[in-house]
Amino acid sequence: MIERASILHRPTDQYAYPFQKDTLHIRIQTKKDNVASIELIYGDQYEWNDDRWFTRIAPLTRFGTDALFDYWMAEVSPPYQRLRYGFHVHGDSESTIYTEKGYFTEPPQDPNQYFCFPYLHTNEVFRAPEWVRNTVWYQIFPERFANGDPGINPPETKPWGSEEPTSANFFGGDFLGIIQKLDYLKELGINGIYLTPIFKAHSNHKYDTIDYFEIDPQFGDKQSFKQLVDTCHSKGIRVMLDAVFNHSGFYFPPFQDVWKNGEKSPYKNWFHTNQFPLKGGEKPNYATFSFVETMPKLNTQNKDTKNYLLDVGRYWVKEFDIDGWRLDVANEIDHAFWREFRQAVKTIKPELFILGEIWHDSMPWLRGDQFDSVMNYPFLTKTIHFFAKGMLSASEFVEQMTTVMMKYPDTVNEALFNIVGSHDTPRLLTECDGNVEKAKLINTFLLTFIGTPCLYYGDEIGITGGMDPGCRSCMIWDEKQHNLEILTHIKQLIRLRKTEPLLANNGTFSFLPCKNGIAYVKAGDGRKCLVILNPTSEELKFMLPFSLKGRKIIDMLKNQEFMMESDELIAVLKPYDASILQFQDGSS
Amino acid sequence: MIERASILHRPTDQYAYPFQKDTLHIRIQTKKDNVASIELIYGDQYEWNDDRWFTRIAPLTRFGTDALFDYWMAEVSPPYQRLRYGFHVHGDSESTIYTEKGYFTEPPQDPNQYFCFPYLHTNEVFRAPEWVRNTVWYQIFPERFANGDPGINPPETKPWGSEEPTSANFFGGDFLGIIQKLDYLKELGINGIYLTPIFKAHSNHKYDTIDYFEIDPQFGDKQSFKQLVDTCHSKGIRVMLDAVFNHSGFYFPPFQDVWKNGEKSPYKNWFHTNQFPLKGGEKPNYATFSFVETMPKLNTQNKDTKNYLLDVGRYWVKEFDIDGWRLDVANEIDHAFWREFRQAVKTIKPELFILGEIWHDSMPWLRGDQFDSVMNYPFLTKTIHFFAKGMLSASEFVEQMTTVMMKYPDTVNEALFNIVGSHDTPRLLTECDGNVEKAKLINTFLLTFIGTPCLYYGDEIGITGGMDPGCRSCMIWDEKQHNLEILTHIKQLIRLRKTEPLLANNGTFSFLPCKNGIAYVKAGDGRKCLVILNPTSEELKFMLPFSLKGRKIIDMLKNQEFMMESDELIAVLKPYDASILQFQDGSS
Repeated sequence: MIERASILHRPTDQYAYPFQKDTLHIRIQTKKDNVASIELIYGDQYEWNDDRWFTRIAPLTRFGTDALFDYWMAEVSPPYQRLRYGFHVHGDSESTIYTEKGYFTEPPQDPNQYFCFPYLHTNEVFRAPEWVRNTVWYQIFPERFANGDPGINPPETKPWGSEEPTSANFFGGDFLGIIQKLDYLKELGINGIYLTPIFKAHSNHKYDTIDYFEIDPQFGDKQSFKQLVDTCHSKGIRVMLDAVFNHSGFYFPPFQDVWKNGEKSPYKNWFHTNQFPLKGGEKPNYATFSFVETMPKLNTQNKDTKNYLLDVGRYWVKEFDIDGWRLDVANEIDHAFWREFRQAVKTIKPELFILGEIWHDSMPWLRGDQFDSVMNYPFLTKTIHFFAKGMLSASEFVEQMTTVMMKYPDTVNEALFNIVGSHDTPRLLTECDGNVEKAKLINTFLLTFIGTPCLYYGDEIGITGGMDPGCRSCMIWDEKQHNLEILTHIKQLIRLRKTEPLLANNGTFSFLPCKNGIAYVKAGDGRKCLVILNPTSEELKFMLPFSLKGRKIIDMLKNQEFMMESDELIAVLKPYDASILQFQDGSS
Repeated sequence: MIERASILHRPTDQYAYPFQKDTLHIRIQTKKDNVASIELIYGDQYEWNDDRWFTRIAPLTRFGTDALFDYWMAEVSPPYQRLRYGFHVHGDSESTIYTEKGYFTEPPQDPNQYFCFPYLHTNEVFRAPEWVRNTVWYQIFPERFANGDPGINPPETKPWGSEEPTSANFFGGDFLGIIQKLDYLKELGINGIYLTPIFKAHSNHKYDTIDYFEIDPQFGDKQSFKQLVDTCHSKGIRVMLDAVFNHSGFYFPPFQDVWKNGEKSPYKNWFHTNQFPLKGGEKPNYATFSFVETMPKLNTQNKDTKNYLLDVGRYWVKEFDIDGWRLDVANEIDHAFWREFRQAVKTIKPELFILGEIWHDSMPWLRGDQFDSVMNYPFLTKTIHFFAKGMLSASEFVEQMTTVMMKYPDTVNEALFNIVGSHDTPRLLTECDGNVEKAKLINTFLLTFIGTPCLYYGDEIGITGGMDPGCRSCMIWDEKQHNLEILTHIKQLIRLRKTEPLLANNGTFSFLPCKNGIAYVKAGDGRKCLVILNPTSEELKFMLPFSLKGRKIIDMLKNQEFMMESDELIAVLKPYDASILQFQDGSS
């Protein structure tokens, strides 16, 4: 029996979206192993009178499976940009037609009974800026990356790396330090840096802004920031800043005004206040980020506040030509604000990248009117749970990754900002309990998966540290202390990503069934790249569904070429080892 | 067994939305009759450290059922506008915790595992303008309503009602005619008129605009239009115009320019053209509405075209103070255009009503950034199929209406533009095969259901006619030809709607289980209104789940009062009869 109550489709979000200017993706989910095949019946509703309108048929491919569902997809080009469609769902012993109006034994005559994707508009193809696809990011916590100008050290600056990072100590990292280390980054291969906040603030992390139009003096000034951006650009490195618009810092002058003058302050509507005088403490009597009294929530619905923040958004793009805005606590700000923000900054620089910090299901922000991407925390969590901690089986991992990917259009998945560590999570090598092989394997995964990958400063040389502040320790510049095994591995992967466009996001992605290992294939342009990963401490044999007899295969990671001799592709990987196999696409 | 693959929730659209400034609606659907009860476990994620964060529990109510699903809802007020939540789903013999990350036997510790509605912003409470709630609309096809000024008749105008309407003939309806009949409309009780297009155009229906800034001379001029709006306003009647922005008419000067000058025309990007010279015929070589060569599709992505149309949108609001825009073929225009349109017109008049013509699932346009409402064609189709044609059983009708309602938040359902006839569908009485009792019953349903109801001119006096052009015949002004039974009935219903706010959209709505009849209850403000409808040709007995012994019940439709004597509410309705029972809300 087809389980109708488990069939899900709606002509919006990940279920129906423009993939390219003349193709749509249509997806549907069904109960796992419940449906044998599905066909899309479709046409133009205004050809209905010709009795031809639904004669077009396209098979759907079962392109993903998780614990509960099978996911199916068809790619179609609507004849006149308009699409009416239904699904012919075949079970083992019955079949049914599923449309917007329900289930039918025969295709309904009236096109109004079908699902409708009314018009494929070119401006509704969701795409992050094209350069993002080929970018490898590097996240810098400026206070801890490099101290280039001790003359601007904040008071009580500790000698570099002389003690453990705390929530209150300072080590004097600054822009000049970053500029001096750009050749290091260039050699690493990254081509985008994401800086956590740089504006004038009280703390070492600078998420408590005092002045959104000023550089924090411990980092430098507008001139040195300009120099940083320009130098990055001259080296082909893009620069993304962190916009903390959900809340200001306690010492933000408008908040200080309300703090002192209460109801009489002209700024009282800049925040979410309804009791005066303001009172901090464990549960402040005004809205804050979390319950942090020093981070009062900004009222982005107040016109003056909104205009101020939009000006901030424009200013750093216009004056300093930054390439991206990462939006802190983006989910707790209203959608209307983000729509205006996108308009404001993209008017100045259409190729600006807009990245939201959202930890949960982010579809409402990724409909084309707000963000280009979100930070992919589910990727981080599941990757650590599986590769580093062994909390999931390989099949559970693939299923759970599939669940997340199936929540978004492919166009979104290609742009998701994948991380395996950040200033808010324990260090990768620490999560791996010091196991270098695991850390390398995770980086192989990060740098070959679908999405735009970001390294966290120092992870490439094996810095360790727990949950923040532990993960925010000083970058180590003594090369003798660098873990060269990890560093060399990451450099190689970034190089491969540049030489083989499929490894960046220029092809299709699919997991392959695999017992204890992980295997996925990226395909396009007549080639395939097959990535196989052994996450276990045992040797692992992969038998993969490709008939490649007599064809040449290149292992890109090991830099080996071999001819296939058997019919089946069998590969044996040592514990925690990986291969990236490249071959010409054949008939199978 | 709980059928997990049929459980559906996502923190967006109809599943999670702000209902009022401090309350959220959380909905979930499960396979029909598969789940015994559900509880929402919820809290603020930043209280997590206190171990208190998910101690809040709210039961969900099973508030709807259709052929496949049960629908559940809880109304919650998040303690600090932020909500993390999961569902404790109880089957007959097992229970499970359902969150964003899947299914668990125990509530997960980490708040990041739960569904997230990050912040309840007051500007994200979806609401049509408040006045819409209490409006009864009347749709006028201006060419056919009343001829007040024969001096501006178009050439070859036929004597009023002297022949059947065709796609080409003219009868000379105009603004002065409408103005002269406003007292008739006032007495009928309507307080909003929706005019199909009035701008300069070629056809009698005016959907082929020649000049969006000019009144069609057969209707009058800007002065008489101003007089129409002002007179309406003085009588408490609002005015909505029809914006045909998907396509222009053939004689629209920019199109004429492209038609004549082809690739050299400065207007070539105003349309979707890629072959020159333009060629019409059965399948024009430029995009059109449907395949109609005289309706070239406007390119709303072209900046000049967009600005022109936004100016049109602003002009009639600003200069003539109209109260609403109905948007023709709204679904085939890009979302970005509609977002800008909303900004443009609401900036001038925040209380303007924006109504889209969309025949299918309209969620993507009803997320607060585009329309206030759409024309409720599913309401029309199902109502005609059930009441007029008997194609559905009562339970099928209730199930199908439920399916549609469950696709939208309550805030949207309250604003949907319900119709039982239009210039694009056969006349109501014709659909009822001349059965006046059925037509009356359908109007009872229309005027008491959730949504904003619209009458189609002439339906109130029993005009008949088939699919267009048949449904566009001249309004009959000879009172002897009026069907007074229908007219009196509608007048009474509109009066009741004004005296009992629950009958408009000022309370909650729910269907009651009922064997062959239809019953629903609207509740709020300490009262209930129970509407019961007998759609059959037999006497029908209703046994309703209310214990009202000793309490006073008023039948508003029959203007009778009675005291309940028995424990159960039993009502007997004659064929096609209805009752609207009003009583104070008690304990049950």
